[in-house]
Amino acid sequence: MGPVFDTVFNERLAELLAWRRDVRRFRTDPVPPGLLDRLFDVVQLSPSVGNSQPWRWAAVDDPARRQAVCANFQRCNDVALHEQADERQAAYAALKLEGLRTAPAQFAIFCDVETEQGHGLGRATMPETLAYSTVLAIAAFWLAARARGLGVGWVSILDPAAINAIVDVDPAWRFIAYLCVGWPEEEHIDPELARHGWQRRTDAGRTILQR
Amino acid sequence: MGPVFDTVFNERLAELLAWRRDVRRFRTDPVPPGLLDRLFDVVQLSPSVGNSQPWRWAAVDDPARRQAVCANFQRCNDVALHEQADERQAAYAALKLEGLRTAPAQFAIFCDVETEQGHGLGRATMPETLAYSTVLAIAAFWLAARARGLGVGWVSILDPAAINAIVDVDPAWRFIAYLCVGWPEEEHIDPELARHGWQRRTDAGRTILQR
Repeated sequence: MGPVFDTVFNERLAELLAWRRDVRRFRTDPVPPGLLDRLFDVVQLSPSVGNSQPWRWAAVDDPARRQAVCANFQRCNDVALHEQADERQAAYAALKLEGLRTAPAQFAIFCDVETEQGHGLGRATMPETLAYSTVLAIAAFWLAARARGLGVGWVSILDPAAINAIVDVDPAWRFIAYLCVGWPEEEHIDPELARHGWQRRTDAGRTILQR
Repeated sequence: MGPVFDTVFNERLAELLAWRRDVRRFRTDPVPPGLLDRLFDVVQLSPSVGNSQPWRWAAVDDPARRQAVCANFQRCNDVALHEQADERQAAYAALKLEGLRTAPAQFAIFCDVETEQGHGLGRATMPETLAYSTVLAIAAFWLAARARGLGVGWVSILDPAAINAIVDVDPAWRFIAYLCVGWPEEEHIDPELARHGWQRRTDAGRTILQR
């Protein structure tokens, strides 16, 4: 028999899901390596299509590489700003979208789309399930990190091919996410984009279609 | 200040992550609708790019639709079987890969890739982050379900376009996952694919590249 999770645990889990945030404001004090190591242990328990375990994590610590990631973000974000409707550009420019200059720990996460582990099971019609498995690993990391008080921020305003080059990994690996990790400067229960008037939470997706 | 999650909670969370399984063997007694409703409440707390909340859930209850999903799985799985190397076909054929005939609750999950919510923020260079946001919602559902004793099985051996048609949703929505949900017949800490000799867990992805 597996473990039973009681009401108290379920309430705390709901609280964890509610307080997990995308964090962009970090204190600069380091994250103990042993703590990160425990998080990677739980990442390894994530589900994956065919048990393929396709996630590949790179710790990006070199200052020159971090600077190159920052510069890539700046370029992509400038383009994104100008793609916004005129009336939203000022609001967009005022948003804080990443903590690349302060987050003490930073990771680029890739998906090895050519892995033979799992012998292709489960992904013949939907090869994208390899990328989805990598996202599930990030979800586990994010929750486990928050449960230990760590903040995580997912940066996606980046050029994937450039990140593969900057981080120096196999060009065939698919770039999935760049994560900033550290102790958050402040805690909030509402998303930053809601708090700063960009996009509030709605009921989108809450109605279950009946078929 | 946000909540602090203590050591006891962190240990239980690690246990939850360890015991979350992809379940394919279900009891047929129904899942209380109120319980599913509480799970959908936590799904709504999931992170999403630009706060776009692009997940769209359809409960598939109609017997004819369920039968059509089953038939689609059979067709796709027959093809997948024959794409396996000769020496693995018998092992593949012996695997139980889904619980479509017994799972009392079944959901098709789509991503509205055309949603304007979020005003495009965060996805100009990586539009796939909408699909990834939908996967994060599934991750939250999966863990919250297991914490209440429910099993979840993710079926991906399906033709996405056929599922949009069977479930009768906007063809522009991207099919992400088909979930079987119910009380599991048995509990295991090891993945079914490992237990039945298809693919054991390895250290793939556990070594963090240093950059």
